[in-house]
Amino acid sequence: MQFDSLDDIRAFCRDLPEGDDRFADAAARRQQNLTKPPGSLGRLEALAIWLARWQQRAEPRLERVTIAVFAGNHGIAERGVSAYPQAVTKQMVANFTAGGAAINQIARLAGAELRVVPIELDRPTRDFSIAPAMDSDEFLAALDIGYGTVPQDCDLLTIGEMGIANTTTAAALCAALLGGGGARWAGRGTGVDDSGLTRKRAAIDAALELHRAILGDALAVAAALGGRELAALAGAVLAARSRRIPVLLDGFVATAAVLPLARLTPAILDHCHAGHVSAESGHRELLRELGLAPLLDLDMRLGEASGAAVAILLLRAALSCHGGMATFAEAGVSGAGP
Amino acid sequence: MQFDSLDDIRAFCRDLPEGDDRFADAAARRQQNLTKPPGSLGRLEALAIWLARWQQRAEPRLERVTIAVFAGNHGIAERGVSAYPQAVTKQMVANFTAGGAAINQIARLAGAELRVVPIELDRPTRDFSIAPAMDSDEFLAALDIGYGTVPQDCDLLTIGEMGIANTTTAAALCAALLGGGGARWAGRGTGVDDSGLTRKRAAIDAALELHRAILGDALAVAAALGGRELAALAGAVLAARSRRIPVLLDGFVATAAVLPLARLTPAILDHCHAGHVSAESGHRELLRELGLAPLLDLDMRLGEASGAAVAILLLRAALSCHGGMATFAEAGVSGAGP
Repeated sequence: MQFDSLDDIRAFCRDLPEGDDRFADAAARRQQNLTKPPGSLGRLEALAIWLARWQQRAEPRLERVTIAVFAGNHGIAERGVSAYPQAVTKQMVANFTAGGAAINQIARLAGAELRVVPIELDRPTRDFSIAPAMDSDEFLAALDIGYGTVPQDCDLLTIGEMGIANTTTAAALCAALLGGGGARWAGRGTGVDDSGLTRKRAAIDAALELHRAILGDALAVAAALGGRELAALAGAVLAARSRRIPVLLDGFVATAAVLPLARLTPAILDHCHAGHVSAESGHRELLRELGLAPLLDLDMRLGEASGAAVAILLLRAALSCHGGMATFAEAGVSGAGP
Repeated sequence: MQFDSLDDIRAFCRDLPEGDDRFADAAARRQQNLTKPPGSLGRLEALAIWLARWQQRAEPRLERVTIAVFAGNHGIAERGVSAYPQAVTKQMVANFTAGGAAINQIARLAGAELRVVPIELDRPTRDFSIAPAMDSDEFLAALDIGYGTVPQDCDLLTIGEMGIANTTTAAALCAALLGGGGARWAGRGTGVDDSGLTRKRAAIDAALELHRAILGDALAVAAALGGRELAALAGAVLAARSRRIPVLLDGFVATAAVLPLARLTPAILDHCHAGHVSAESGHRELLRELGLAPLLDLDMRLGEASGAAVAILLLRAALSCHGGMATFAEAGVSGAGP
């Protein structure tokens, strides 16, 4: 086990590995000399510099890109909060393995290796509206799986999830840690109808009442109101941080999964970018709470790391310019006037 | 010449070739059967359907993608409205040809063929604050070059431009056709300072006063306040429409270039998407006026078709899913519950 207790995680978050400004500065200087007005590539410039900082390379690369998709099942599904039956989680994992899902197509296009990690799909978490979803050991075991999924060396990690009912789990985490109740955070997920949405809000509000004694403890909340794939997502972010691997987060669930870590220390997200903002209603507000500016806003709400995987293409565009453009001197182009 | 007179263009815009709903409907039906909640790929679904409509293929493709970058010089540059000397237009065309510019890198990444079309760089348009920039024949000649640049058959056309001082030209077209004067539309372009911005606004306001008699005639405005590369951009959009080739527009200048056509008939933009919204201050408002929702918002402001070329990657993601995903039946995945 990477972390034997919740306190081990807390200790890690108090002493985080940092990015390397020397490489960020070198990348920024290079951007100033390329044949374009300074800053005119906008976020593509900032992304190249961000990759330089975490990869510790003035000319960063995306040769090895890993997409990790974690899957879990949720006792809260019994409350009728999803438009789809719980069996779909396992069916979609099979679809990932067979190559038929959206993420398979986008991963291939983006030149990324896809790792699909189902976690105890036959043992859903407990219904958190009536009991803790996981105890600490169950939470740490799932987090450890996520930690162990991250390669020792890779240039970028992209993370997402699959789990019927897990937008309810994500909304519960947000409500517990940011306030506002089910009304603020529950959305339609895969497309639940009005009565399903009402049940979803009620389940979250019941959980807030049941677990009110622990709401001040972010990691206890992550266990009691979370899910196995969310714990694994948090573990993957910690592993990436320990190796200074930059991370693209996917949508509402993936972002909610790291919220407990961010409550311990906001700096835990310095090596992360939000790949996109989902159409799932709580995501935009959650990103705002976390100070994350999404790279894409395409009305996607599929999960599976699909939105973040599209954002890999933007990073490739950023590095193609950063590494391939001529400087003013090389091209014989005049600079700005006096 | 494709168009012998401005009236020929007006006639074309009254009787536009339309997209084909049969193929759009077939693509939409396919999207409903793919292994994802309906609509969960958001704009990626809409883009696949849009490409199907204009390519007249239920499974559209992006095998032949052309990026056309038109370059021109502007008499208005003499008013001190740009941070860069006019010589940079020709220098950057050489940079495009040598492969050192941003657009070269992004075009390669996006699998697109780049066509660079300088138009009479040694013969700038006249300073439109004191005379018409072009007469009708000059405007039609430049428009014809743009028309002729579009391949007979291609799967997607992406268009952009290069021309020192041409954000002043673009702002003048917007001010003439949408109102509000230089204060509403002039931005910092490549990075002009405060006094340059003041000169830019004044030049536009002087032009509005000088040309007030023709402001009700969109094509006369396009000649008198436009530029050769902007005329060529409009010609390329007309050629693409005649062949039902879908188009990605680049930033402020490329969008302003088609504004005169959109004033004749808003439907002229049905085969176009805005690839991105530029950081150049007028672009967001211009897109809103035209009812275009940009695909990307990355704070880019380079021109050269660079933002739209990044958006090609989104179209590739859309088609990778549309063509490659399994259906619910193929994958044995359960649909939504009752």
